[in-house]
Amino acid sequence: MSPTPLDAPGHGGRAQIVGLGLIGSSVALALHKAGWHVSGLDVDEARMARALELGVVDHLGSDPVASIVFVATPVAAIASVAMELLESRSGDPELVVTDVGGVKGQVVASIADPRFVGGHPMAGSEQEGPDGADPDLFVGATWVLTPTDVMSPAAFQRVRSVVASFGADVVELAPARHDALVAIVSHLPHLTAANLMSLASDASEEHSVLLRLAAGGFRDMTRIAAGDPVIWPDIFRDNASAVIEALDDLRGRLDEARRMLVEQDRGALVALLEHARVARRNLPPRMPRPESVVECRVPVPDRPGVLAEVTTLLGEIGANIRDLEIAHSAEGERGVLVLTIDAEAVDAARAALVEHGYRPAISRLE
Amino acid sequence: MSPTPLDAPGHGGRAQIVGLGLIGSSVALALHKAGWHVSGLDVDEARMARALELGVVDHLGSDPVASIVFVATPVAAIASVAMELLESRSGDPELVVTDVGGVKGQVVASIADPRFVGGHPMAGSEQEGPDGADPDLFVGATWVLTPTDVMSPAAFQRVRSVVASFGADVVELAPARHDALVAIVSHLPHLTAANLMSLASDASEEHSVLLRLAAGGFRDMTRIAAGDPVIWPDIFRDNASAVIEALDDLRGRLDEARRMLVEQDRGALVALLEHARVARRNLPPRMPRPESVVECRVPVPDRPGVLAEVTTLLGEIGANIRDLEIAHSAEGERGVLVLTIDAEAVDAARAALVEHGYRPAISRLE
Repeated sequence: MSPTPLDAPGHGGRAQIVGLGLIGSSVALALHKAGWHVSGLDVDEARMARALELGVVDHLGSDPVASIVFVATPVAAIASVAMELLESRSGDPELVVTDVGGVKGQVVASIADPRFVGGHPMAGSEQEGPDGADPDLFVGATWVLTPTDVMSPAAFQRVRSVVASFGADVVELAPARHDALVAIVSHLPHLTAANLMSLASDASEEHSVLLRLAAGGFRDMTRIAAGDPVIWPDIFRDNASAVIEALDDLRGRLDEARRMLVEQDRGALVALLEHARVARRNLPPRMPRPESVVECRVPVPDRPGVLAEVTTLLGEIGANIRDLEIAHSAEGERGVLVLTIDAEAVDAARAALVEHGYRPAISRLE
Repeated sequence: MSPTPLDAPGHGGRAQIVGLGLIGSSVALALHKAGWHVSGLDVDEARMARALELGVVDHLGSDPVASIVFVATPVAAIASVAMELLESRSGDPELVVTDVGGVKGQVVASIADPRFVGGHPMAGSEQEGPDGADPDLFVGATWVLTPTDVMSPAAFQRVRSVVASFGADVVELAPARHDALVAIVSHLPHLTAANLMSLASDASEEHSVLLRLAAGGFRDMTRIAAGDPVIWPDIFRDNASAVIEALDDLRGRLDEARRMLVEQDRGALVALLEHARVARRNLPPRMPRPESVVECRVPVPDRPGVLAEVTTLLGEIGANIRDLEIAHSAEGERGVLVLTIDAEAVDAARAALVEHGYRPAISRLE
């Protein structure tokens, strides 16, 4: 490819994106929206051309004076790309480099430059590449940054302010802690879902009727196993030790659950189920706003239009739905809409729902 | 309570319900709708009064000439209730008794009467008791019946035809097979979800930020743990051996997953994830209608009204949404609506969605 000419920067900032997948392209658009001049690079020339065509980037190629670089390559390539960039501008204090990889410990440890700040936006979609890019992908999303002793505080503050300008909710975690926590809430659940789905699938070869018995709960539990597995082998390689630790914790708990079943320890079983129930009900909504949101559970029949009716009803009275889940209760053709809405809209929402024959159960999220 | 007078039967059939919880009350309404005269009994007198007040039953008390009895008590009481009924009308060939319990082996084995037919409707809702009852609860739901050698084929056919008249999709399984299969697709997933949620909750006591990192995948996987645990201790008692067998299968798979992580066996890990992905994508919709439905995946931003817009759009062109899931892809504030719609509506649906800026991916379900 031949580089396109550099346009004049917007607010004076110049940024570089390496890797124009969904996240890299969305970062490019978010930067562009904030007035940055954005240059983009990718190993795939067709993808680069598409990014330029869609206006995802202003320029193709390297920008030698970019003040911030987002490395959005697959995890395996991050360290070498970042090191090469940092070395090529050795000693340049105007440069900060950050990344968007899902595992942080190894990458951060291998880049011992004060101008590097590890990051992980907890956002995504099923779309891919520049075509799926969205400048608002990170609005309200948690974006983890992983400060270290090596890192310059000034570099950290610069990355933090740029990321916060995308509307992200920035959470600062040490790299190892990030990896331990995502092992628990993301990597282990993914591995478990894959194994549950495989188990049922293997059993269904002998019992073809099995999957006709798979109702809402099973579907919910295995849904993430349907995702494209391409990013997972790298994650399981780079975060193996944390995933193994979380897996061993789960294995120990399943051993204990087995003991409860064998010994018919009803008390322990009830305590386990009750503990989990309370914890799940207290799980914060994805955009936690204590005291300002309420949870509204609306049992609904499975008929065409019911979802549209409930959501439109709430839209008409101006209640913003911050989160929505469909709980396939127990089994079968019925469900409960679990809506997280603004507390200020609660009275109007309740009235509107009751008027239309629904029986909402509303509780404040503490 | 004093029994109310028996009204004249509708189409001549007289039915008895024992246990007026959600399922028992819904069976009562479904029978009533089909022209049966329905008598109801419950240990809770207030609940009985409510059932009569709501018209869920025609009569309170025992009907000594009922030709079909549904035992809808908690699992622990089914066998004694059914046996007492059968013995009180010993030798009466007009009587058939069935139940709705979630575990079948022990109950069916302990009732050695040809007039008893075990059953399990795979339907439910978060509502409780007569107030939550719905005559259409079983339309399209799978209803398992568990024929045995002891059972009279005539009794079986009578129960089957009544249940099918509710709109249920009847599946016949041997009791032990039913228990083994629901252990895999319902009981083990529930136990696993409870343990994953407990694990994360315990870890969050040390790392309070943990649950802020819990995105869509984790929420999906633990959702069933939020349910009321009241029915589960009995299920785990009565189906302990099948649950232990399924649990040991999962434990073995997790041991093997641990080996893959420790030995960095990327090939095996990719094969596991790919196997699970294909199996999950092929999971039949809850109302399987081969060739007549399509799956439509619509990436959507997380903004108010988007769900209403998509569902209304499809409603306007007459596309019946048979199933809807929200897939929280990867992590964060975005999602994909996975809609199962009638194949005949697919062209109109695609056109309407594209016209409104959506990018649906449509695939036929084989």
